[in-house]
Amino acid sequence: MTEKLNMTTENILAIYEKLKDLSHNDLKSDEITFLLLDLYKECMTFINRSKIKALNSFIPNKEYFCFEWQNKKSRAINKELFIKEVEVIKTFKESFINMNYKNNDPQLINNAIYSIAISFCAIIDLIKNGDQKTPGTYFEYLIGHLYAKRMNINPRKRVEVLNLDKKATLPTDYIIDLGGNKAKFHLPIKTSTRERVIQVWAHQRVLDGVYGAGRFIGILTCLSETKTSAKNNQVVDICLPDQWLIYQLFIAQMKRIYYLDIPQKYKELNNSSPKIIVKQFGEFFSEADLLTV
Amino acid sequence: MTEKLNMTTENILAIYEKLKDLSHNDLKSDEITFLLLDLYKECMTFINRSKIKALNSFIPNKEYFCFEWQNKKSRAINKELFIKEVEVIKTFKESFINMNYKNNDPQLINNAIYSIAISFCAIIDLIKNGDQKTPGTYFEYLIGHLYAKRMNINPRKRVEVLNLDKKATLPTDYIIDLGGNKAKFHLPIKTSTRERVIQVWAHQRVLDGVYGAGRFIGILTCLSETKTSAKNNQVVDICLPDQWLIYQLFIAQMKRIYYLDIPQKYKELNNSSPKIIVKQFGEFFSEADLLTV
Repeated sequence: MTEKLNMTTENILAIYEKLKDLSHNDLKSDEITFLLLDLYKECMTFINRSKIKALNSFIPNKEYFCFEWQNKKSRAINKELFIKEVEVIKTFKESFINMNYKNNDPQLINNAIYSIAISFCAIIDLIKNGDQKTPGTYFEYLIGHLYAKRMNINPRKRVEVLNLDKKATLPTDYIIDLGGNKAKFHLPIKTSTRERVIQVWAHQRVLDGVYGAGRFIGILTCLSETKTSAKNNQVVDICLPDQWLIYQLFIAQMKRIYYLDIPQKYKELNNSSPKIIVKQFGEFFSEADLLTV
Repeated sequence: MTEKLNMTTENILAIYEKLKDLSHNDLKSDEITFLLLDLYKECMTFINRSKIKALNSFIPNKEYFCFEWQNKKSRAINKELFIKEVEVIKTFKESFINMNYKNNDPQLINNAIYSIAISFCAIIDLIKNGDQKTPGTYFEYLIGHLYAKRMNINPRKRVEVLNLDKKATLPTDYIIDLGGNKAKFHLPIKTSTRERVIQVWAHQRVLDGVYGAGRFIGILTCLSETKTSAKNNQVVDICLPDQWLIYQLFIAQMKRIYYLDIPQKYKELNNSSPKIIVKQFGEFFSEADLLTV
């Protein structure tokens, strides 16, 4: 059985390498959608053979568990959002191969994406040591692909910056440009944010400064904010809503914050003044066309 | 000999714990100055018994070496800036006990501080595994102490933020407030910056937004930007001067960037347009009174 799992692990890493290669060419392609599904299926083969351990959730109304393998534990997984494999595959194909967003419940789309995202991240937790980079990069490809597919435009990762003396470009998160006289999207993507999140507002500020306010629509997309204590298996979520409000007031304005597993404290920012609109990522696909209005 | 070094290691960590405790009470006190010297002397006892290895410097006009102990290597140390123990102690006492900045060469003050800073950081590299936090916190206490001493005012780490509905405070880097109608200093302190440096300009932007432009004088203080490749012992420095200029143009204005081991590419920003004033930290002590003019 260990041998079989080792083969699965090799397959998972091989598909991930292929995903990395192809993403640079044509991130919005159906080839990437199918590759993401292949990777997810391979991850589920691994997961179906590993142990499940319930975690001690300190987050009201949410239950979490993790996977265990060879004395290692994965990150926390939201029980309600992690749905059955057949449902994930069906929903993902309908939404991102048939491009049928309207017939699918936003919550179902959200849960399918959550399941695909967290299964790979959890396996990297189990088979690598303290590797934060691979889950982060994978999550950026996955979410970048879904944005590119929904808007039917490939993103880029640099913008030109006006400089009187010489040409300069600024490395950025994904940028999707709908074309002349149309909106441009600034799309930072993070598995979790913590204190580094000020970078997101600061990059938005630079884009507002270089191109003028309102030219780039800032949308941050995150997986979750859970943290599991290794000692006692307690799950908490780490949120800084007061600091987000200060960044939104004094640095720049983000149009949306999407989460796959949305923390309650950030959800409440929808009702604060100033408000920050924080939604489940599944809602993006039906409201995408309204964001530029 | 290993036993003796183990005792030294214990002493180093014990003095560091004491430094952490006392720093919260009265960071500018002579007690802290002496504690920093005690810690440095204990570090030198360790260092004098460990091996020195020359590194392959790819930085023009700078030579680097590292310490080795039990198959571990420390971070890179600048040969010219790492001066003799007697000189370090003499210079540090004259400058920060007798407060005699004018009779001491800024370069000599700089090198004494560099030697004190890097010796502790290097030892933590040797005795801990991948611990970035302890060197960072220590460096913040050391540099914070020197600012507090020079200005004779203890810093704080929160500022109040105006909020129409409720009281809110923002956690910040060190803030030194010279009092009513006088300047306030915003003092981020980092062992190295890399891509996280945008946070420094973003925090300055928040302070400018909350209190008005010019109320807080932003000064960033750094140790160095060297990076050593574990494979072939090559030392490079990682600099992003074009990005710094964009932050300075579009996010906020930093009044000074001080380095103990100043990278050439950042030194050149003194001659760019817009310019960013980047100096050796040793120069701060003679120019401090001019910064508010």
